[in-house]
Amino acid sequence: MSNVPFFSSRWVSGPDNVTEAHDGSLPKGFRAAGGAFGVKPDGAKDVALIVSDSAETTSAARFSRSGAQSAPVLHSRHESKLWELRAVVVNSGNANAATGQRGLEDAAAMSAAAAVAADIDAHQVAVASTGVIGVPLPIARITSGITALGSELRADGAADFAEAIRTTDAFPKAVSLDVALEAGTVRISIQAKGAGMISPNFATLLVFIQTDAALEADEADLLLSVCIKRSFERISVDGQLSTSDTIVLQASGASGVRIEPKTADEQLFGEALDAALRQIALLVARDGEGARRVGRVVVKGGDQHLCERVAHAVGDSPLVKTALYGADPNWGRIIQAVGAALPGASPLNVDISIEDIVVCVNGSYIEHDEQALAEAVKRDEVEYEVVLPGDGAEAERYFSDLGHEYVTINAEYTT
Amino acid sequence: MSNVPFFSSRWVSGPDNVTEAHDGSLPKGFRAAGGAFGVKPDGAKDVALIVSDSAETTSAARFSRSGAQSAPVLHSRHESKLWELRAVVVNSGNANAATGQRGLEDAAAMSAAAAVAADIDAHQVAVASTGVIGVPLPIARITSGITALGSELRADGAADFAEAIRTTDAFPKAVSLDVALEAGTVRISIQAKGAGMISPNFATLLVFIQTDAALEADEADLLLSVCIKRSFERISVDGQLSTSDTIVLQASGASGVRIEPKTADEQLFGEALDAALRQIALLVARDGEGARRVGRVVVKGGDQHLCERVAHAVGDSPLVKTALYGADPNWGRIIQAVGAALPGASPLNVDISIEDIVVCVNGSYIEHDEQALAEAVKRDEVEYEVVLPGDGAEAERYFSDLGHEYVTINAEYTT
Repeated sequence: MSNVPFFSSRWVSGPDNVTEAHDGSLPKGFRAAGGAFGVKPDGAKDVALIVSDSAETTSAARFSRSGAQSAPVLHSRHESKLWELRAVVVNSGNANAATGQRGLEDAAAMSAAAAVAADIDAHQVAVASTGVIGVPLPIARITSGITALGSELRADGAADFAEAIRTTDAFPKAVSLDVALEAGTVRISIQAKGAGMISPNFATLLVFIQTDAALEADEADLLLSVCIKRSFERISVDGQLSTSDTIVLQASGASGVRIEPKTADEQLFGEALDAALRQIALLVARDGEGARRVGRVVVKGGDQHLCERVAHAVGDSPLVKTALYGADPNWGRIIQAVGAALPGASPLNVDISIEDIVVCVNGSYIEHDEQALAEAVKRDEVEYEVVLPGDGAEAERYFSDLGHEYVTINAEYTT
Repeated sequence: MSNVPFFSSRWVSGPDNVTEAHDGSLPKGFRAAGGAFGVKPDGAKDVALIVSDSAETTSAARFSRSGAQSAPVLHSRHESKLWELRAVVVNSGNANAATGQRGLEDAAAMSAAAAVAADIDAHQVAVASTGVIGVPLPIARITSGITALGSELRADGAADFAEAIRTTDAFPKAVSLDVALEAGTVRISIQAKGAGMISPNFATLLVFIQTDAALEADEADLLLSVCIKRSFERISVDGQLSTSDTIVLQASGASGVRIEPKTADEQLFGEALDAALRQIALLVARDGEGARRVGRVVVKGGDQHLCERVAHAVGDSPLVKTALYGADPNWGRIIQAVGAALPGASPLNVDISIEDIVVCVNGSYIEHDEQALAEAVKRDEVEYEVVLPGDGAEAERYFSDLGHEYVTINAEYTT
């Protein structure tokens, strides 16, 4: 990844005031570590800890809306002060989901061990687990691992942390960015894992974001909320919702640069965070278990709700996804998905274009350059536009394809 | 198929008064034909016509609810007298969908040609097309084909008709059943095609049902409605809705046996139709483009709407479908799908069993015989039970698996 610029998608522009940092350091005030403690059978790293040393740390967090939330999600939601999280402790290889009272006790034990290791209050720890569902954690290994990591925390520990939170990811999803503001330069680091709420035994999207900017907790919450809506809430791998998705933003303030609400600096910081999370989300979609290509559908029309519904229907359609995988220019699958999302709307006045080639006007095929279309759908990123009647509303959705690797990973991996 | 009894699923029992007819004849009063007229590039049969010779014929029909209905669906809905359809004309190889005004004119031309061939009014013809979307019909070939079929209509033409309506189906889905009623014996014949609203270029579920019983049109409509709810509306192949799904029931009355409303005979006839359509629906699910296995999920609880929502979520989940394909006993995918369908319900009190082996109680794993479970999920038909809090409500869903053949057919077939 080091030779590829982080902002690699044509759908995301890295802001001018943002530069990629390659020194391996977390934002000021943060230390992290990750190690192998026997949760994963293959001996890979599986326990991770990240700590802010600043007592002024603010934070914000978001979790899966699943009705079957994992024990660590339930624990963090109910026991943690999500606005002043100093530490995040994670294990991979086991999701601690569908594990009942024992699961809640194990999540509490992870939190307690991290609190001791970081010398903070247990309410300032968020817990996350990712992996197989319905199997109790090997909790003794994990808590002794957390204790061991306490003495290994380092400012350049992000790579180990990022490695230890991963499961089936085909490539790492982590970055450090320096963001030049009027008040000075701050750093944003992100470590993410996930092939988008998708993987069977190793489900879950985990995203951890640190900055050394000083942010009010309310402001951190607002920024995170806005950026998630434009990034992770717009991707579809297989339309599935994990029991365990967790996103945490921590701001240590250790840079001395304070971001005040409604200032130019807040705007600049927000744009940087937005671009970074959109790019991470696209990496997650691209990693969608064997994905060859990523699609983007933009739906325009007069009704925001209908535009959203159609964008979801297109992005989640297995027929559209297999066409993307196979570089099949068959736009009939797009209109099929649009029609399915709008029952009773027949006859439907819809225009469809693929990579700016208009293939359908007012619900009917139109002559187009089929050779050019066949070439266009072979690209790494393929863009579809659907125009419904009316204007003023627009929805966007990024989606991975559906190919043999998805079936192989999900069907042939034996639990 | 001739060696396999029609009622092959353990989830459907053939009623005692129903016997399979193997004489090849349609119900009295019906004649059918099918032939190859160059719509399909491979020279297979692609135009089909079925006609009732009785002026007393009643009928009922149902269509895809897609907002992008195909031209023949729009034509049949708006131009045909759906309660007295004498003929159904079908082409395969081209769906005549997303074809605008030209498409509507072509559908009308098919209807007109069939009316001439059958010597009936054009309003008594239903039109159906299945195949590629967004390409104009080769209408001249089709109308001259319809004319040719007019002189080939035969009482034993059901097999040719059934063959000509098929596209990617791996096996035929047709049957003739004799149903013994108090007033006499009537015949029900069914010709269906479809791998369930699934296939990319050759989408669509088509089901044509004939009987020589005499039925009021209202009664035919009611029976069809009830039976579809219990059959085709309970199957999921890939959760997609075709532009073109069409189901037509015709009753010629030529047996002389009249089925009066609210009689024992109506009950017997309804049970036979119900069993037949459920079995056809299961054949469609089993044929779900390369499916190895069919799953059935039964969801019980206190809220009918939530039970339906959970049954859909489980049956449509690509993670559940790939597990079914791979005979993976990973029930975590079931609870993941249940949780995704019930946002905000955490912690969720749900019990899950697979083939009567209880794997989850009150949202938490429970010790079970893993060896027995591993064997149970290898069966051709696998049953899952999900129990939500409360009682009195129940929903059921049949679903096909998701395997390599699905990807191959949908991604690697070049349009």
